Parts: sequence; structure tokens; C-alpha cells
Amino acid sequence: MAPFDQAVALNPLGGDLFEGHTSPAYANFVGPFGGIMAAQALNGVMQHPGRLGEPVSLTVNFCAAQTDGPFTVQARPARTNRSTQHWIVETTQNNEVVLTATVFTATRRDTYRKVEHTMPAVGVPADTPIQGGPKRVEWVNRYEMRFVEGHFPGKWDGSGQASTRSRLWLRDEPPRPLDFCALAAMCDAFFPRVWLHRASFVPIGTVSMTVYFHASSAELAATGTGHLLAQAQGQNFFNGYFDQTAQLWNEVGALLATSHQVVYYKE
Amino acid sequence: MAPFDQAVALNPLGGDLFEGHTSPAYANFVGPFGGIMAAQALNGVMQHPGRLGEPVSLTVNFCAAQTDGPFTVQARPARTNRSTQHWIVETTQNNEVVLTATVFTATRRDTYRKVEHTMPAVGVPADTPIQGGPKRVEWVNRYEMRFVEGHFPGKWDGSGQASTRSRLWLRDEPPRPLDFCALAAMCDAFFPRVWLHRASFVPIGTVSMTVYFHASSAELAATGTGHLLAQAQGQNFFNGYFDQTAQLWNEVGALLATSHQVVYYKE
Repeated sequence: MAPFDQAVALNPLGGDLFEGHTSPAYANFVGPFGGIMAAQALNGVMQHPGRLGEPVSLTVNFCAAQTDGPFTVQARPARTNRSTQHWIVETTQNNEVVLTATVFTATRRDTYRKVEHTMPAVGVPADTPIQGGPKRVEWVNRYEMRFVEGHFPGKWDGSGQASTRSRLWLRDEPPRPLDFCALAAMCDAFFPRVWLHRASFVPIGTVSMTVYFHASSAELAATGTGHLLAQAQGQNFFNGYFDQTAQLWNEVGALLATSHQVVYYKE
Repeated sequence: MAPFDQAVALNPLGGDLFEGHTSPAYANFVGPFGGIMAAQALNGVMQHPGRLGEPVSLTVNFCAAQTDGPFTVQARPARTNRSTQHWIVETTQNNEVVLTATVFTATRRDTYRKVEHTMPAVGVPADTPIQGGPKRVEWVNRYEMRFVEGHFPGKWDGSGQASTRSRLWLRDEPPRPLDFCALAAMCDAFFPRVWLHRASFVPIGTVSMTVYFHASSAELAATGTGHLLAQAQGQNFFNGYFDQTAQLWNEVGALLATSHQVVYYKE
């Protein structure tokens, strides 16, 4: 079983409740990588026997750092329509909420399609070197990252740069066929824009992330273990919180997900 | 009392519950304008005696069209930390959920600030004509709109355009001092990108919208009744759902809010 599958595995407790366990493979500075917490919450919806359709949107709010150990996911269908469903998810530890989420699922029909935000021309993954060596934060080792632009600051000298746009080829390490949970986690795999902006190691923490899925499971299956071109850029840094927008395309230019998040920064 | 204040007014029922009433001044094709529903849900948090700090992020999910009449807003603090708070909001009618939301509030501190997504140079509101005449959909008359770019399609001939970027000067009509609820509503005041993209009157409905606030109440008060430059652009149209990103600056270039939404389209 791949580390990702181990990390998001949930044990049904009956009704809307599921039990999971934190995974050392996705450890962050403090508590787990936010992306894996988002994937675990989404998996509560995916595993729910009452689910209708596939995810179209996901918003996760990180309420507190998880501690190592078990957690409970409650995935509750708040409203079920003919072909759409709205979910409220709460992840708890010791009866305290550590994450809230809302998920919208729908049965999709074939309609007009068009990517407006097209993939930039950046070459192919094989021509872009993998960033070398194991990283101190364990979850980073669960991703293969090939930076095209906007890599980690080379010097932490406060110089920074006006544009915080990053572009990288990204996939799970070890490679694993793409699904909704893995794609949600990848949307959180960007290092903080404030570090790039300021070349300063400011303490940070994501507080809310939204993912819009522009794919059905068929498109994700077709992407398989291929790389995604992942792009992120900041928009505003204001009194303790900044935001970013992000896009993730597969190698043939399908925009599989767009994402946004707002992140706390200390100073 | 301004129509906006009438529309978002809530009567406290005790605990986490508030009662509101739909407003004919914000009627849409079917049910109310989504922006006013978002503002009503946020106002449940704003009016809650247990609120800590000011809104930083808001996600609203539109579960069903509201019918004209009373509704109940339940605003529940799911997690309260030292200086941050996570809320779950559910708006119901006849005991059925019509809207879910999550809100993150925080007490902000003065920190480093920088607008990365700067306001485009588009002149001033006074040089940009107001779009004339009353509109068939009532809520549109509650906004003064001065389009700079990307106005409503002139012909519904299926010609469309590759870029769905719109830019307009926007404010409440009648003018009203800006606050968080009004700003949240304005984030939903863009007409659907799919109409601009295809020049075709496709049935649509927003299913989820996220707003990140990059302002404290002081910045909103300073903006007062001034115009906001509102910009929106689509990213992807895929099998029944498209998304847009949006930015709203005040006249001196402060990026007060960034927003995103995903919208159902029929074909």
C-alpha cells in the first residue's frame, strides 16, 4: 500500500463517522501536512455509502494542529438534491474540532468544455531536474518536485521578489494513480508565498483552502501517474494573512483543478 | 434604512440562531441574489455575541433556491482559539438546508503588507458611464455598475470571446458605507462568465463562492461609499461547472477582497 493510501485510510464507524490515524510519512513542522488532512476529510465523503456523484468543490478550514494519533471524521450530507449533494465535514480529536470542511458533489453530464486559463509552455518534466536530496520536513519527500520557476529562496536575506509565481512539475513519490484525494492534497503542496516574496523565514500556517475539481474520475484515471504542472501565485499580504491562487494541469494541458488558500503569517 | 440593511437584518432567536426574511429588493430569476444570501449568512456570525475578531475568509455553498419568506441562520463557533475562530453556518427554510457556509474570523495585528495583484490602470469611475436603465432582474438595480471591459454580450449569437475578463466600477445603489457583508455580496455581483464566453444564454447557478477579506473594518470604513474596481475572469469550463477568480480594489488601490466561485451551467 502506498504511503498516501495508508495516510488517508478510514475505518467506518457507522453512520457519518469514520476513524483515521495520522501518518508519520506526511509529518510537517507541527502536526501533519495540511494537504493530507484535506485528503482525509474528503475521503470521509468519498467513502460514505450515501454519496451522490463526484467532488466538484472542497473547502477545508484548518482549525488547529493535529496531534499524532487517531482522529474522527464526520461527513454529513446537509442537503441532497436530484443530482447534487452538499456535505459538512468535521474532523475531531479528543472531541475538539481540528478541521471543518464543506464538499459539493454532483453527477456530471457531458457539456461544452473549454480551458480558459491554458497551460503555459514550460517544456516537459523529463527536461526539468528533480530537486535533490531528502528534506527535513517529511511530507515534502512524498512528492517529486521539478521546479520550472519560483523555487525556494536561495538566500534568506530579506531580498525577496515582486512576483511570487511558482511553476513546478509535481507528482506523488512513489508515483501513484491520481484520484480526487491525491489531487486535493497536491493543491496544498506549494511552499508559502510569503517566503518567496520576502526571502524571510516567517512562521506561517494555512487557515483555509478551496479546491475546484475540473475533472471526473475518468480524466484522473487517464492522467494516471503522470506529472501535473502546478502553478501558484500570491495576491495580497495584509496584516497577518495572505492568499494565493493555484492551477494544476496534467501533461496534455487539461486544467484538472484550480485552488486558492489564505495563510497566516506572523509578521 | 438602506435596502441592503433591510435585506441582511437578522432577529436573534437566542443561542446560535437568527431569523431573517427574504427581500424583494434583491430578487433574482429564481429566489434571491446569491450575494445577499451570502451576506445574510455572514451577518449571523457578525451579530453573534460570541464572535472573536473580524472575517478573514468566507465560503458559502448554495444548496437550493430560497423561497420568498422567513429563513433561519444558525451560526455555530466550531473552534475558538486564542485569537482565531472557525464557524459553521447553516441557513434553513422549513427545516431544509438552503445554504451552508464556513467563516474564519481573527483578531489581526499590524504586519508587513503588500498588494501583489495590483490594480490595473483603468481611469476613474466618473469617466466611465453608468449602464443605463432599470434591469429585469431586481437585484441588479441595487448596484451601480460602470463597465470598463467585458460587459454583457451585445448579441446572443454564440460568437463569444476567448477571454472572459470583466472590469467594472461597482458600488451599492443607493450608496452605503462599505462593510464585510456588503463586500461579500459584491463578490457575487459578476454576471456569469459562461455568458460572456459563449454569447449564449445558458441556464446557470452558483454552487460555491469563497471570499478572502484583505481589510479590517478600518479599511472598509475608509473606503466608505467609494467605488470598487471589480475584476473577474473564468478559468475552466468543464462538464457542467465553470469557475472564476475575482479581485475587488478600492479607488486608492487597496485589494480589499479576492474571491472565487464555481458555477453550474446546463449545457
